[in-house]
Amino acid sequence: MSFHVNRLAVVGVGLIGGSLAAALKQAGVVDEIIGLGRRRDTLEQARSLGLIDGIAESPKDAARADMIVLAMPVAQTEAVFAALAPHLHASTIVTDVGSTKSDVIAAARRTLGRNFSRFVPGHPIAGAEKNGPQAARADLFQGKNVVLCPLAETDANALAGVESLWKHAGAQVAVMPAERHDRIFAAVSHLPHLAAFALVDDLAGREEAAEFFRYAASGFRDFTRIAGSSPEMWRDIALANREALLAELSAYMAKLGEIATALDRQDAAALEKIFTRASVARRKWEKKPQ
Amino acid sequence: MSFHVNRLAVVGVGLIGGSLAAALKQAGVVDEIIGLGRRRDTLEQARSLGLIDGIAESPKDAARADMIVLAMPVAQTEAVFAALAPHLHASTIVTDVGSTKSDVIAAARRTLGRNFSRFVPGHPIAGAEKNGPQAARADLFQGKNVVLCPLAETDANALAGVESLWKHAGAQVAVMPAERHDRIFAAVSHLPHLAAFALVDDLAGREEAAEFFRYAASGFRDFTRIAGSSPEMWRDIALANREALLAELSAYMAKLGEIATALDRQDAAALEKIFTRASVARRKWEKKPQ
Repeated sequence: MSFHVNRLAVVGVGLIGGSLAAALKQAGVVDEIIGLGRRRDTLEQARSLGLIDGIAESPKDAARADMIVLAMPVAQTEAVFAALAPHLHASTIVTDVGSTKSDVIAAARRTLGRNFSRFVPGHPIAGAEKNGPQAARADLFQGKNVVLCPLAETDANALAGVESLWKHAGAQVAVMPAERHDRIFAAVSHLPHLAAFALVDDLAGREEAAEFFRYAASGFRDFTRIAGSSPEMWRDIALANREALLAELSAYMAKLGEIATALDRQDAAALEKIFTRASVARRKWEKKPQ
Repeated sequence: MSFHVNRLAVVGVGLIGGSLAAALKQAGVVDEIIGLGRRRDTLEQARSLGLIDGIAESPKDAARADMIVLAMPVAQTEAVFAALAPHLHASTIVTDVGSTKSDVIAAARRTLGRNFSRFVPGHPIAGAEKNGPQAARADLFQGKNVVLCPLAETDANALAGVESLWKHAGAQVAVMPAERHDRIFAAVSHLPHLAAFALVDDLAGREEAAEFFRYAASGFRDFTRIAGSSPEMWRDIALANREALLAELSAYMAKLGEIATALDRQDAAALEKIFTRASVARRKWEKKPQ
């Protein structure tokens, strides 16, 4: 079975949308890629970089595409769905790249109407510190995981199409329920971000903050690197994955409480047990290809 | 005032002790460096690498030195003090490189007797992932901070001598009370290690651990890097700095609780405020030379 898209629309041609466009062009599986976005200069830049062939003038114009990839900030998801919905053809496939899935599915259900069954929720596990079309790279997804979260009502052809799209971009595709996706990423991504924000804010709020930061070294640097992330983006992700994240925060605080109790009791064996399990698991993880 | 040491003894010629020896040899301020340690092969290796000139056969032999630097694992500190004490000359200066200071001072007070006033507690803020004499580098302390924590009874000449020692090794020396040192490092070093151990152990203990780790990416990698550290070393550091660390754990859990409450109430403004303060502080810190 061969995969080919006549016209692909990318909404939000930044790092993720631009890299996907570049990868698909390189793979030669798309005839024309059009970009839609809020900022004309970004779209012009994406076009001059060769990431897209044309600029869609409106959601209606973008809906001429056979497949539409939503790659703008997640806070705009429902508004973009609503703007596209009236113009979608019966066969148009829609997918997204958001870091949380249950909330995106709820927004799609509220807005896409008869096209909901051809919406395939997706999440590429790739990113970089840089943003914008100038950061796009055709190899960004090479060997990376992409999680797709189809529902019972999701059209099998739509799912197969989005799966092919990502495979042609070099990614490995995994399929799982949205609830499971959201629990996993609450644990391995969203919680670490909140924990890093918490530590830095805890220190930054003290009178002696300047002196404390002066003595912070490499351990602090690594642990808190993600606390430099976008506050708006992480506010939105936290709220979008609220329930799973609250459960993770609670489990994490319980584990910290367990360590505090062991320390308070000077229970060397209990501390060593926790630290050893963590150290062994972390070293084992580091050795695996990610 | 010139600085010169006829004979320096280094107890524990690993990364820190070996690098200090190499730096002082390069600076040409020490005539002879002798090493003392538990493992003969490590000492032979340090000698063949040119880090030390000779091997001390016993604590008594090491106590021939004018200055003694303790650079072995902190758990051995009191035993080493006790072994050296009977052999110390009235003028011998002793210093250490431990990550916690109040506990080392207490051990010195219990064991060093009349030589306690010539013990200068120290902590070089440098390290690397590698260990052992083969990892030693003469430039390890170049531009790094070294904190010294003299007491009211500490001899001014001993303090000046240890300060010169570190400056000749390329470090910047800061002097502060041990209690302040221990609070600072509980916050910027010990707490992040415990928080990273806690997160990895929390995940590693779950049935779905393998699948969770499969989707962990770069944010998780940075945040948890220090969870791969030595469990025994961090058990000892945590216990040695127990009171300050318990206070830090408590403040950190309170901040996480504040985030959980804001998330539970869907208070977007409160979340954004915390994340923004953290992000601004982290970015500002990253820009400063450390």
